[in-house]
Amino acid sequence: MQFEEKTVASKQIFSGKIIDLQVDEVKLPNGETAERELVYHPGAVAIIPITEDNKIVLVEQYRKPLERTLIEIPAGKLEKNENPLTAAVRELEEETGYTTTNLSQVTSFYTSPGFANEKVYVYITNDLIKMENPPAGDDDEFVQIMEVTLDEAKDLVEEGRIQDAKTNYAILYLHALNK
Amino acid sequence: MQFEEKTVASKQIFSGKIIDLQVDEVKLPNGETAERELVYHPGAVAIIPITEDNKIVLVEQYRKPLERTLIEIPAGKLEKNENPLTAAVRELEEETGYTTTNLSQVTSFYTSPGFANEKVYVYITNDLIKMENPPAGDDDEFVQIMEVTLDEAKDLVEEGRIQDAKTNYAILYLHALNK
Repeated sequence: MQFEEKTVASKQIFSGKIIDLQVDEVKLPNGETAERELVYHPGAVAIIPITEDNKIVLVEQYRKPLERTLIEIPAGKLEKNENPLTAAVRELEEETGYTTTNLSQVTSFYTSPGFANEKVYVYITNDLIKMENPPAGDDDEFVQIMEVTLDEAKDLVEEGRIQDAKTNYAILYLHALNK
Repeated sequence: MQFEEKTVASKQIFSGKIIDLQVDEVKLPNGETAERELVYHPGAVAIIPITEDNKIVLVEQYRKPLERTLIEIPAGKLEKNENPLTAAVRELEEETGYTTTNLSQVTSFYTSPGFANEKVYVYITNDLIKMENPPAGDDDEFVQIMEVTLDEAKDLVEEGRIQDAKTNYAILYLHALNK
């Protein structure tokens, strides 16, 4: 492939609980070399949960990299070798207290392909079942659930309280569906 | 704020040309502590360039974190303290050879708020002017330009050649506009 960047040298910088960081020296198509800073992430799932009365279930959560809360569709990281569909059911249950037997994949995308390999699988369901005893989520995650109409979600975008790639995508997707 | 995670300790792991990595110990709302792996990124711009004959200008580029090429809307990192609008004009010129005097902001979003602070500002223009002498881009970037219809872009999504959050958003945005 004409664009390919061949790895000349590779240096592991950090191996964390969630991400790894590596710096590679690559050979460019023109023969020169360059450095690439590479973040490896296990991938994630996100769910667009639609209630019986046509509301979207969202979660507000503190995001340390931004030092603020964001309102997002429910989402979470993949466990090692986990099927994204299984992960999506788990995250839906843990974050919203709903479960479902019917999840359709909407799309999947890389969030930051310039420096990270994170891939997000986006699902939708409008078959939500309220759980009597929802499983506890990760013990370091605190989320607040809200159920809003599509118009209310658009207002949250306008107000800057929704400012997250997968959630903006989800709202646009629902808007396109309903048009 | 009830969700806030207070920083107890902070450790700089890496300071690179593009990203920095830091690991913080935080105090959670329940009094427990947790670790947060935090990637700091300068932010980025992306442009949806629409030609006179209603085609989208896309660029194919090798993405080392994925070890493959992706087809994306033109995009690039912000320079230090750079106005996103200025950056958007610069990236449009460097990557496509078009310029414009009319760019509107469509949205902005955080791409991976769980571990990174990267924010992308998305612009659109349908006033493209072909440059006679476009500026050279970064000398370690090799891109191939293509101009496609919205239907062709959707096919590229179906084929998995477009699989990038900002570009999937852009295509959905154009789809919603044209509906």
